[in-house]
Amino acid sequence: MALTSQVAQAIIEAADAKARELRQPVIVAVLDAGGHLKAFRRMDGAVLGSIDVATRKARTAVLFACNSEDVWEYCKPGAPAHALELTNGGLAPFGGGVALKSADGGLVGAVGVSGGAVDQDVAVAQAGAAAFAS
Amino acid sequence: MALTSQVAQAIIEAADAKARELRQPVIVAVLDAGGHLKAFRRMDGAVLGSIDVATRKARTAVLFACNSEDVWEYCKPGAPAHALELTNGGLAPFGGGVALKSADGGLVGAVGVSGGAVDQDVAVAQAGAAAFAS
Amino acid sequence: MALTSQVAQAIIEAADAKARELRQPVIVAVLDAGGHLKAFRRMDGAVLGSIDVATRKARTAVLFACNSEDVWEYCKPGAPAHALELTNGGLAPFGGGVALKSADGGLVGAVGVSGGAVDQDVAVAQAGAAAFAS
Amino acid sequence: MALTSQVAQAIIEAADAKARELRQPVIVAVLDAGGHLKAFRRMDGAVLGSIDVATRKARTAVLFACNSEDVWEYCKPGAPAHALELTNGGLAPFGGGVALKSADGGLVGAVGVSGGAVDQDVAVAQAGAAAFAS
Repeated sequence: MALTSQVAQAIIEAADAKARELRQPVIVAVLDAGGHLKAFRRMDGAVLGSIDVATRKARTAVLFACNSEDVWEYCKPGAPAHALELTNGGLAPFGGGVALKSADGGLVGAVGVSGGAVDQDVAVAQAGAAAFAS
Repeated sequence: MALTSQVAQAIIEAADAKARELRQPVIVAVLDAGGHLKAFRRMDGAVLGSIDVATRKARTAVLFACNSEDVWEYCKPGAPAHALELTNGGLAPFGGGVALKSADGGLVGAVGVSGGAVDQDVAVAQAGAAAFAS
Repeated sequence: MALTSQVAQAIIEAADAKARELRQPVIVAVLDAGGHLKAFRRMDGAVLGSIDVATRKARTAVLFACNSEDVWEYCKPGAPAHALELTNGGLAPFGGGVALKSADGGLVGAVGVSGGAVDQDVAVAQAGAAAFAS
Repeated sequence: MALTSQVAQAIIEAADAKARELRQPVIVAVLDAGGHLKAFRRMDGAVLGSIDVATRKARTAVLFACNSEDVWEYCKPGAPAHALELTNGGLAPFGGGVALKSADGGLVGAVGVSGGAVDQDVAVAQAGAAAFAS
C-alpha cells in the first residue's frame, strides 16, 4: 500500500481516535520512506515538546527500518554501538515510532507519537499503523 | 476563534480543495501564534523542497504578524532592512504565508503553502485562511 | 494572569532579590507559553555558560508544561524515554526551570535560573514564580 | 562606565520610555563586549521575529565595534566585502544596533532594538545608549 495523502490522513485519524479513547492528547507525525513529513496533527492539549519527539521517533523508525525502541538494543549500556543515539542529528530510541511496511516487507514510512506515557504513545502509534495495514 | 485541532484540519481541507481546483499539488502547514506546528499535509505529487518552504512561509507570517510577502517590503533592494531575510534562521519573504488573526486583530497563527507558482500558493493559502475566518 | 512585560519584570526582580539574599549571582530568563524570550537579566558575576542553561531550563519547562527536573523522571537510567534529553535541540532536565501556570492550570510561560548550585537555582526560580502567582 | 546589571536595566528602561513615546512596541537587547546577553525586554505587542533581529543588531554592533548599519558600507552592492553579512552566523547590517563605548573609546557592549520602522528602532536604541553615556 502506498503512503498517499489519503492513507496518511487515515493513520492520523485512527491514532487520534485511540488517543481520545485513552484520554491522552498526543502529537502524531507520519513520514514517508525518505523520512520526509507527509501528515501531522497536534491534538489540543498536547505539550509543545512532543512535536519534536513524535517526529524524531518516526524518523528513528524510518532511518533504521524498525520500531524506534528497537534502536535502543544497539546503543543501551553494554551494547556495542555506543552513542548511536547521537547520530543522525539525534535519535529517539524509545517507544512510539512504528515503521510502516508493505506486504513484501519494504519500508513505506513510519508513524511517530508522543504526548503520553511511553506505553500510551506506543498504543496510539500502533493504532495508526493498523490503519495503514488494513 | 481559537486554533483548535478541528479548525486547523478545516484549514488544511479548504486549502487542499483549492489546490485540487487549480490542479496543483501543494504542501500546507498550519502554525500557532508561537510558530509551532499544529497541522500539516503534503499532497501527493508535491515536491519535497516545499515542506520547508511552506513551513517557513507560515513561520515568517507568524514572526512578523503579517503575510509573508509583506516582509519583502522591508528587505528588498533599496529598503532599509538589508539582509532581514537572514534573521530568525532564514525567512521566506514571498507569497504563500498568510497570518491568521482573530476578530480583534490578535495573531492566532498562520497558514503556509508551497508547491505551485507563487500566485497559486497565495490563492491556496487564502482559501485555507478563509476557512479559519468563517 | 497574563505574562505582560510588567509581570515579567516583576519576576526578574523577585528572583534577583532572592539571589542577592543567597549571595549567588545568577541569570534569570522568562519565556512565554510559546518558548519565546520575554525578559532576561544576567546579574553581575554570573558565569557566561549560565545564559544558555537558564534559558534552556525555562524552555524545557515550557515544552513539557512542568518543572525542568520533572523531565528527568522520563529519561533517567531505567526510565523508558532514553535520550529524551537530546530532543528539541537539547533539554536541561534538572532543577531551575519552573512552569508558570494560570489559575485554571493553563501554561503561561516559564522562568529559568542558572548560576548557583541546583538547589539555589531552584529557590531563585521559585521566588520568581511566586511573584507571578501573586 | 561598566555595563553592570543596573546600567543595563537603565538602558532598557530608557529605550522602553522612548518606544512608548513613539507608540511603537519594540524589543530591546543589551549585550556585553563579548556579545553575550546582559538584559532583554520584549514589550507587549512587539512581534516575535524582532527577538532575533534586535539581538542580531546588537551582536553586529559588538562584532565590528560600530553601529549595525555601518557594516552595510562594507557589504552593500559595489563594496568589496561581498557576502560579509553571511559571516558570523548572519549579520543584521541595518539600523537599530548601537555600540556602547567608554569615554576612552573602548567597546563595552551594544544595545539592539527591533519592532518598528528602522528609523524608530534607531531612535529607541539611541535613547538606550544615551542612558549608558550619562
